[in-house]
Amino acid sequence: MTLAHVSRLRQALREAGFDGWIQPRADEFQGEYVPASAARLAWLTGFTGSAGISIILKDKAAVFSDGRYSIQLKEEIDLNVFQPCHLVTNPADDWVSKNLAPGEILAYDPWLLTEAEVKRFAAAAAKAGGSVAAAEQNLVDKIWLDRPPPPATPILPHPLEFSGVDAVKKQEEVANEIAESEATAALLTQPDSIAWILNVRGSDVEHTPLPLSFAVLGSDASIQWFVNPDKLVEQTRNWVGKNVQIEHINSFADSLKEYNDKSILVSESAPAAALAILRSNGANVIIGKDPVALPKAIKNKVEISGARAAHKRDAKAVVRFLHWLSTEGQSGEVTEIEASDRLESFRRSLDLFKDLSFPTISGAGANGAIIHYRASEAKEFKLQRNSLYLCDSGAQFLDGTTDITRTVAIGLPSEDMRRTYTLVLKGHLALSAARFPKGTTGTQLDTLARAPLWEAGLDFDHGTGHGVGSYLSVHEGPHRVSKAASTVALTPGMILSNEPGYYRAGSFGIRIENLLLVTEIDIPGSERESYGFETLTLAPYDRNLIDISLLSQTELEAIDLYHARVRNELAEYLSDDEAGWLVSATAPL
Amino acid sequence: MTLAHVSRLRQALREAGFDGWIQPRADEFQGEYVPASAARLAWLTGFTGSAGISIILKDKAAVFSDGRYSIQLKEEIDLNVFQPCHLVTNPADDWVSKNLAPGEILAYDPWLLTEAEVKRFAAAAAKAGGSVAAAEQNLVDKIWLDRPPPPATPILPHPLEFSGVDAVKKQEEVANEIAESEATAALLTQPDSIAWILNVRGSDVEHTPLPLSFAVLGSDASIQWFVNPDKLVEQTRNWVGKNVQIEHINSFADSLKEYNDKSILVSESAPAAALAILRSNGANVIIGKDPVALPKAIKNKVEISGARAAHKRDAKAVVRFLHWLSTEGQSGEVTEIEASDRLESFRRSLDLFKDLSFPTISGAGANGAIIHYRASEAKEFKLQRNSLYLCDSGAQFLDGTTDITRTVAIGLPSEDMRRTYTLVLKGHLALSAARFPKGTTGTQLDTLARAPLWEAGLDFDHGTGHGVGSYLSVHEGPHRVSKAASTVALTPGMILSNEPGYYRAGSFGIRIENLLLVTEIDIPGSERESYGFETLTLAPYDRNLIDISLLSQTELEAIDLYHARVRNELAEYLSDDEAGWLVSATAPL
Repeated sequence: MTLAHVSRLRQALREAGFDGWIQPRADEFQGEYVPASAARLAWLTGFTGSAGISIILKDKAAVFSDGRYSIQLKEEIDLNVFQPCHLVTNPADDWVSKNLAPGEILAYDPWLLTEAEVKRFAAAAAKAGGSVAAAEQNLVDKIWLDRPPPPATPILPHPLEFSGVDAVKKQEEVANEIAESEATAALLTQPDSIAWILNVRGSDVEHTPLPLSFAVLGSDASIQWFVNPDKLVEQTRNWVGKNVQIEHINSFADSLKEYNDKSILVSESAPAAALAILRSNGANVIIGKDPVALPKAIKNKVEISGARAAHKRDAKAVVRFLHWLSTEGQSGEVTEIEASDRLESFRRSLDLFKDLSFPTISGAGANGAIIHYRASEAKEFKLQRNSLYLCDSGAQFLDGTTDITRTVAIGLPSEDMRRTYTLVLKGHLALSAARFPKGTTGTQLDTLARAPLWEAGLDFDHGTGHGVGSYLSVHEGPHRVSKAASTVALTPGMILSNEPGYYRAGSFGIRIENLLLVTEIDIPGSERESYGFETLTLAPYDRNLIDISLLSQTELEAIDLYHARVRNELAEYLSDDEAGWLVSATAPL
Repeated sequence: MTLAHVSRLRQALREAGFDGWIQPRADEFQGEYVPASAARLAWLTGFTGSAGISIILKDKAAVFSDGRYSIQLKEEIDLNVFQPCHLVTNPADDWVSKNLAPGEILAYDPWLLTEAEVKRFAAAAAKAGGSVAAAEQNLVDKIWLDRPPPPATPILPHPLEFSGVDAVKKQEEVANEIAESEATAALLTQPDSIAWILNVRGSDVEHTPLPLSFAVLGSDASIQWFVNPDKLVEQTRNWVGKNVQIEHINSFADSLKEYNDKSILVSESAPAAALAILRSNGANVIIGKDPVALPKAIKNKVEISGARAAHKRDAKAVVRFLHWLSTEGQSGEVTEIEASDRLESFRRSLDLFKDLSFPTISGAGANGAIIHYRASEAKEFKLQRNSLYLCDSGAQFLDGTTDITRTVAIGLPSEDMRRTYTLVLKGHLALSAARFPKGTTGTQLDTLARAPLWEAGLDFDHGTGHGVGSYLSVHEGPHRVSKAASTVALTPGMILSNEPGYYRAGSFGIRIENLLLVTEIDIPGSERESYGFETLTLAPYDRNLIDISLLSQTELEAIDLYHARVRNELAEYLSDDEAGWLVSATAPL
């Protein structure tokens, strides 16, 4: 089928006078999820992963994705049509520079690429003696006859009992930042930023409760909100302030022509098309950070209480699930999907539950070593005896977003599994216990979570932590904990994950994840404003996987203290059976 | 006297049609030390610190330096003429934007500023409604009638027994890098890079054995070396290869006009004047890193053996000094300068000793809290009883460069001194013991050296480690260990310092510094190419300052092991008295 799609695309390219097409996975909002109407990469190539890009030339084509999807990529694409490539070791721009012929024109939809991406492809095409060109019409959309309509789900108010701060106050605060950067307005192209600053939520994409829209926030705190008006229920029209001028999303591009001679702040993730319109109409474009990202990341008091409550609620489901895993889950007959369905069913009964916060990663045995594994109905992997089971999952509650990973022994774990689990746990505990002065970034703390693995010559190839939204995206910036350099200081109110891991390809995977809240801490004799973490997630670590001989006294005490807290905070919400199990699961080591 | 100098400068400015002058501390080589002929900032303002800049306007003037020099700055400048300012909290460009009058022209010598600095001042002047202009002649030189001539010390070969690798081989290696960056040549403006790639040394400045010169290295491994020919003894003319074309340094500027249409790699620290000439003559300037910096930092086998030998030799002087401190130094009557003179006299008797690697920091009591303290003859501070004494010193040997800091108790240290010393030591030990995978940067490891202080709400406001040259600059890049982001991976062969500290202003200062060599390490079961450190420096930590109750078993063992190594490697070189002292100073804790 994809062959037919590619043939039609090639014909459309010929008709338009082009020789190739760049099809990224992203849509114009550059978010983690795209609606069905924007799943162009999947429609064209069959590849459904969350990161990727395809280049279609006259007589060859390739799909690029990262290491998480190397197996899935080969399974999903037609290898007679597409060459599967690794985004990092064989980047798409390199491939273009080697495969485009002199004089050929590689076309793209400028709404789907950032300016930096366009520049990279332009340089690659030039190297090959060719060029790139922005297509006036998206050629995939042109040939995709049964393309679903864009989502038009209702946008609802996110009331103050969950959002905590009046939208107008948020808008004024960010407007001051914009004024300080000497811009007259900021272009907001990230839908979660817009959802936050308007105190609204939607359901245009899976797992992240946001409406797809654009906005322009003026330095005078006025807002133009570009949105499909069909999504606006009466309640929401009344909810957003009078300073919010509602415009049809279709008029967004034209509206950008009005910024001639004005300075406008635009983030690096904005579509190249928007920048091209601004620049060609004489706007002074200031490329900067999305000014909403930082204030959104620093949760207010209401959001913090919400996060605590949501995590406590979520923990009931997780502990029931861990109890179930420790009993029925030990049979050797449970499948990965049965397990994740079970967890989901526990979560669905919880108050304020709206959705999972991402597709559950339910990885038995060797599948646990696939970092973003997704179980498939087609292959019924079982949680076999004497193996590890890794489950990374989370929920969207109206009052907060959760994300937790636990790795559990099914049957008897090997010594090697226990040793490596304990090394991962030591890193996880070290990060949780960190105290650090104001100004410290996640990059600086990342090492704490890796040092015990490094000591043994081991490591893991993903970040240690990401920011988490408040009933918003489970992955949000601008802070993170990773090897990659970050200049964003961890600030009280930020929520982030703490998820070191260890993966032995073909054998087993380990990841341990809690969410942390950055808090101010009071250290007697301190000379610096010092911060630390409050752990939000409440669920025991698997004691069968802990090798006590590898732990320091401090680490042992930290585990016992955390386990006691889990027990005390949850016992009353559990059945007798579950509570009984929790008592033994959290007994001092 | 500086008033007279400033008056003459103002007159020269008027005559030239300018309204102000930017006088940095740097010369055209942007190095740590400047020769007397280039000490323009000191001559004009009186300020002799190693970092600073002055702005002289018609009716006001300021000198800027950093926190290390805040006291010295006020003491050295005439406060009726100059306003003393902090480089960071009150930067020179901000001051310009506030104090330059509309229409005024601020002049500078484009050989003394980098392009980035010029841009910053241009933006500041524009903000004030004024402008900047490159002066054709340095106006300070014009009025500095008794300015000493530039140094013309002989340049000598640095033989293979110390340099280890043939200069032509180095040149070919770097030329390949230049060719890979698609440049036809690289402009080398850092004298230590030139000294390394030509295997020569000189003595144009204090403490760093380098000749001041410029060079251009072609992608064909040809070199144009721009140097005062008076410095070239016959031996050196024969020593440098036939591919080295010697040109007078005075012809350097003109030679840059020849790069029209060619691509030339230039580092960010190059003088703005050189870039201006290149650009105005049509060269394609590629701003990048000095291509010599990384290969220079990765020491070869001969340099590594040299470093080990130099450190062992240096350790004899340091241990004799520590022994002297533990006896006569405890009297309460020894002055800071007597102490540093004593250490220097021990060093001067060592084989291959050439110079100190920097002016010794000999800080008694509260002076130890001044990070770059320099004792003055004018004030006779004594190593008083019941205080701390901090000594940071190093030597230039033909086979290697050393840099060591020890903090020693004079009399009885307080509990607080012992506690904070032990916290600093814990960080120092953690960094020494680090194991990490290939690709890890100094930024990632920096946290290990700070975590024990952070835990107590304390920190220190300098980097944890810097690169060290091989009989070259004691501070060299491109690697470092600091909070500031670094993208340079620590690579086997690199030498760096490990020097966490703690400073209580007005009371005491603590710093503990060893030099480390990055080495490959073999970890059983390792899955990653793993690196660690070999400690080069050999000298005991002051056991009187170690609070054993704060140490883990691992830390105790690490100290005992290191002390045993110090004892075993040094005993035979010491007098009976000294060896006896060393046995007790290094006995298991």
